[in-house]
Amino acid sequence: MDLTELRNANPEHWTKAAAIRALTLDAVAAANSGHSGMPMGMADVATVLFEKHLKFDAAHPNWPDRDRFILSAGHGSMLLYSLLYLTGDAQITLDQIRNFRQLGARTAGHPENFMADAIETTTGPLGQGLANSVGFAIAEEAQRARYGRKVVDHHTYVIAGDGCLMEGVSQEAITLAGRLELGKLIVFWDNNDITIDGPLDIADRTDQPMRFKSAGWQVIEIDGHDPQAIEAAIAKAKSSKKPSMIACKTHIALGHAAQDTSKGHGALTDADQLRAAKDAYGWAHGPFEVPSEVKSAWEAIGSRGASERRAWEERFAQLSERKQTEFNRAHALEPPKKLAATIRALKKQTAETQPKLATRAASEKVLEVINPVVTETIGGSADLTGSNNTKTPDLGVFLPENRKGRYIHYGIREHGMAAAMNGMALHGGIRPYGGTFMAFTDYARPAMRLAALMKVPSVFVMTHDSIGLGEDGPTHQPVEHLAISRATPNTYVFRPADMVETAEAWELALSFRASPSVLALTRQGVPTVRGDHKTKNLTAQGGYVLAEAEAKRRAILIATGSEVSLAMEAKALLEAEGIGTRVVSMPCMELFAEQDETYRRRVLPAGPVRVGIEAAVRDGGWDRLLLGERGREAKAGFVGMTGFGASAPAGELFEHFGITAQAAAERVRDLLG
Amino acid sequence: MDLTELRNANPEHWTKAAAIRALTLDAVAAANSGHSGMPMGMADVATVLFEKHLKFDAAHPNWPDRDRFILSAGHGSMLLYSLLYLTGDAQITLDQIRNFRQLGARTAGHPENFMADAIETTTGPLGQGLANSVGFAIAEEAQRARYGRKVVDHHTYVIAGDGCLMEGVSQEAITLAGRLELGKLIVFWDNNDITIDGPLDIADRTDQPMRFKSAGWQVIEIDGHDPQAIEAAIAKAKSSKKPSMIACKTHIALGHAAQDTSKGHGALTDADQLRAAKDAYGWAHGPFEVPSEVKSAWEAIGSRGASERRAWEERFAQLSERKQTEFNRAHALEPPKKLAATIRALKKQTAETQPKLATRAASEKVLEVINPVVTETIGGSADLTGSNNTKTPDLGVFLPENRKGRYIHYGIREHGMAAAMNGMALHGGIRPYGGTFMAFTDYARPAMRLAALMKVPSVFVMTHDSIGLGEDGPTHQPVEHLAISRATPNTYVFRPADMVETAEAWELALSFRASPSVLALTRQGVPTVRGDHKTKNLTAQGGYVLAEAEAKRRAILIATGSEVSLAMEAKALLEAEGIGTRVVSMPCMELFAEQDETYRRRVLPAGPVRVGIEAAVRDGGWDRLLLGERGREAKAGFVGMTGFGASAPAGELFEHFGITAQAAAERVRDLLG
Repeated sequence: MDLTELRNANPEHWTKAAAIRALTLDAVAAANSGHSGMPMGMADVATVLFEKHLKFDAAHPNWPDRDRFILSAGHGSMLLYSLLYLTGDAQITLDQIRNFRQLGARTAGHPENFMADAIETTTGPLGQGLANSVGFAIAEEAQRARYGRKVVDHHTYVIAGDGCLMEGVSQEAITLAGRLELGKLIVFWDNNDITIDGPLDIADRTDQPMRFKSAGWQVIEIDGHDPQAIEAAIAKAKSSKKPSMIACKTHIALGHAAQDTSKGHGALTDADQLRAAKDAYGWAHGPFEVPSEVKSAWEAIGSRGASERRAWEERFAQLSERKQTEFNRAHALEPPKKLAATIRALKKQTAETQPKLATRAASEKVLEVINPVVTETIGGSADLTGSNNTKTPDLGVFLPENRKGRYIHYGIREHGMAAAMNGMALHGGIRPYGGTFMAFTDYARPAMRLAALMKVPSVFVMTHDSIGLGEDGPTHQPVEHLAISRATPNTYVFRPADMVETAEAWELALSFRASPSVLALTRQGVPTVRGDHKTKNLTAQGGYVLAEAEAKRRAILIATGSEVSLAMEAKALLEAEGIGTRVVSMPCMELFAEQDETYRRRVLPAGPVRVGIEAAVRDGGWDRLLLGERGREAKAGFVGMTGFGASAPAGELFEHFGITAQAAAERVRDLLG
Repeated sequence: MDLTELRNANPEHWTKAAAIRALTLDAVAAANSGHSGMPMGMADVATVLFEKHLKFDAAHPNWPDRDRFILSAGHGSMLLYSLLYLTGDAQITLDQIRNFRQLGARTAGHPENFMADAIETTTGPLGQGLANSVGFAIAEEAQRARYGRKVVDHHTYVIAGDGCLMEGVSQEAITLAGRLELGKLIVFWDNNDITIDGPLDIADRTDQPMRFKSAGWQVIEIDGHDPQAIEAAIAKAKSSKKPSMIACKTHIALGHAAQDTSKGHGALTDADQLRAAKDAYGWAHGPFEVPSEVKSAWEAIGSRGASERRAWEERFAQLSERKQTEFNRAHALEPPKKLAATIRALKKQTAETQPKLATRAASEKVLEVINPVVTETIGGSADLTGSNNTKTPDLGVFLPENRKGRYIHYGIREHGMAAAMNGMALHGGIRPYGGTFMAFTDYARPAMRLAALMKVPSVFVMTHDSIGLGEDGPTHQPVEHLAISRATPNTYVFRPADMVETAEAWELALSFRASPSVLALTRQGVPTVRGDHKTKNLTAQGGYVLAEAEAKRRAILIATGSEVSLAMEAKALLEAEGIGTRVVSMPCMELFAEQDETYRRRVLPAGPVRVGIEAAVRDGGWDRLLLGERGREAKAGFVGMTGFGASAPAGELFEHFGITAQAAAERVRDLLG
């Protein structure tokens, strides 16, 4: 690579891009950690994008109609931090850059959305940003359809590397984006032929342009160091009705001794080589030093969108007051006031009719009253719509010809669905929910974890939540998945017992602003256990006394979901023998743990024997409730699964695995001695 | 579709295929559950494959050189069961077919490899079979290179549907197969344009042929109901050096009223429609009835390979005795006798030198002595070779030009890697291990779960196992992943404290024949805590007393991995205060739980206070050890993580999150009151 030629061809551009490269080298050297090569390779693309195309106002990073910039190749975080600092972001200051990767700094090793307003999403686990971006682009289309292009009209730009494109989720993302014709989604592929293990070729020879074309994308191939080509490619991408992939041929660690090598991917900290690279850039400034004229030029880029933003504000003010309120409420993640009354009314009606139905079917009935009220929901399923019961009649299907549709047929793409949901939530204005079988939590895991880490309130509707799934067998029967989601920080796992608890769980899930929810719902029918109407949302306490002991209290049965009715049956058996038995329904262990000690003690007093009942492995938080919370090993038992399930009708499986009222009662008798 | 024309064009073929369709209809109707449409759509392809190409001997389903047939679209299990019954498999009898999806039957809802010898892998979670097949094909190439084509020379055939191809893992699988030029891998795509939610088009418009070509595959497009075209396509596929995808245009639920609809995907149980379909097939036989001439024709197919198998046995007998023994030992998953002595010697040497190094580096040193002895290993990493320390110098890289290479650069494909590993193990003759960062357990989860369910001893080398990963931050720091793997049935999770335990863990992992292992290894250096050499593999007990209390025993510290040395430091602090403290190292909770009560009580007696130390969430089995096993809530504490990590140097993070010897000692003092 002849840097001199590049410098001379576009000196102003070069200097701005060099600022990114120099800051990257300095920050990584100071941290003695990080990834230098990607920002150095993609600095030209990013500079042109920010200077010529990206619609943003650095002073207002939350401007709703800004273009979104997503660094899917999150290890190149210094590219993003450099851009934010240079353009004048108030949060990513030079001091933050100096403290790259240090405790308490906003400049974490990989970009974290909660560290600065201008960081759109958390990336680093490869492919996630790209898959989020599909959700961002869906959100834009959906909101544009609702509010009009005067207030919603922006692009989603993504930088993705070979790592992103090799991850399977990228295929789910790009085929979904292609089908949905998300024309305002523009992906830059950092085509540098290098991965950590060596030349890309040792592991991959995919023809990426052909692959993207097969998914319905426009593909533009350019020299990623040629500013004119970059600018033209973006212009062409913006004019397409298809999503666009711009393949940018670049040199990783451009200008450094490690250029075009896998070493260049990592932390380039050698002082001499660092100096030599800066010399090659013609960058004669000290560490972290950006000459004021360069900084000014960048700040001008940062304020370039200010007038556009102001014009937008004027246009927004012309919306009807109702529309403005709705827009702002949805962006603030505030549930509509009517939600509480709607849920209450449904609960009351349910208590009266006491239906026996699967909680997945209950969930559908709840959604039927929620979706007309909470109009910011966008639902969907990974090709299990009829099984997940996620579609209500009013939603309509989101397709190119119907951008007002609020239901997405995600296809058999659980991972891509979950990541797209996160993207919608991060975009703002949308509350996404999406369904699959609970066993396929596994497929969606990387994105479900990120929902928790990123603090976004995605709602994962996981049906067929136990061996109650029946004949499809152990591949489809979750046993460890409640444990998996419960072990994940900042995740609320609801396993409602009936339609009343299902309604309460939905109300809570839609009220969260910074936590995802998992709704674990049955395939099989369950009776109403909350026949006694209470206005209060009892599920909000996590666990509560569903039925008090009649005889002297000697046992407490704690159960969730479909096993709560078994607990009620076991209680009846035990009471008939004079063993007073309390039944505690525990729809959400995390909320129960958040209650104060007094409440928890009231629900789970010391003394009586305790038996937990859940058609899943005990690891899912049960020891805490059975042995902790004033419990004792000698007085505690568990009725559940100890291994994988089997293929048979559900009823037979519950018998086979000994998850029955009789077994629970027997366990109590054993413990009472 | 004009069935009469099809029937008349190839009457003998038609009748054989009709037997599959009729059995499918009958079995699904009897079970009132299952998926009829796929077997009905793909019966022609399967019939031609089995009749004309598949090398197998139904009487010897374990013949090592058989072709492998993998039904990736596992919901169409009746296709496989029909084929096995018809060709005379001893395990899949007519009685089994009649008991489709019933408790105790081998004919589970989705094919399960442990139910019958002829079922190569467990499928149903979509894309897994396809991704396994890459491992099968790698195993074939690797063994052919080692033993010669006279004893190893077979194909891997896969049937995949749109579901398989929409799952992200399919992209990882096909790009890996394309790069590795696995020419003996042949995939049939059931191109029927239907998914559960409706026409495929509502969710996907991918040009699959173009996509496969972009991954380096040969693509052949045919009418999936034309036997001559099918036969010719397979012949063409077999002659290619590239993997081949045969796009088979088919009609789901062919000949049934539900043909070409999403209803046809599911259980077709209507009696009248069933009869009408059979009429259309010209199939005038009762339920589960296959006329003897049809059965005989199929059985002839089943025994077609007998002479080839016998010839193979003669060729195998001509191998050197050493080669035969090695081949049989590896296929029987018996570790070589030398392994134990090799590990012992390494342990002895380690006890003498007492190195301080990361357990991932220790793992590399262990592999350096293992790989020359356990020659059936095939290692690899998802593009983190230098970080996972998975490559030893003797292995060589598996590539088209070096099929003897025993190391695979999987690329950034954690999921595809794990699934391919499972495929190698299932193929037989290979012990696969593969590495990534432990946080990316999430990406590999669907295949890791299946390893456990399928009972295959894949070894997942998960490095950077805590906040000790440092600056890369919370996206890359596992906190819940120990809990996730520990909650998974039939999975052994090892978190060794030092090089001695790492060696012991590897010895155990390589001795398992029916369980996968997860090795959780540190990024950061740890001291040798097992300086006192013991010949016995103490890790085999799961947990053991590493250091006995010196003063009167009042506390037990239980720790794993990098936190064992913290426990030793805490012990020193406490003993200095006269608080006698035992340290228990707990490298494998599952093995500890398998020890008898007497042993467990000896290690964890009632009485002393207990503090667990692990840089992860408490959910990972800790309550069982702290509150169970004779423990008590009032006398138990935990020092670990309660949420996600942060980006900073590792040492600072341990301080920041309070995972220190001081904190552990303080917790003990608090509990002692």
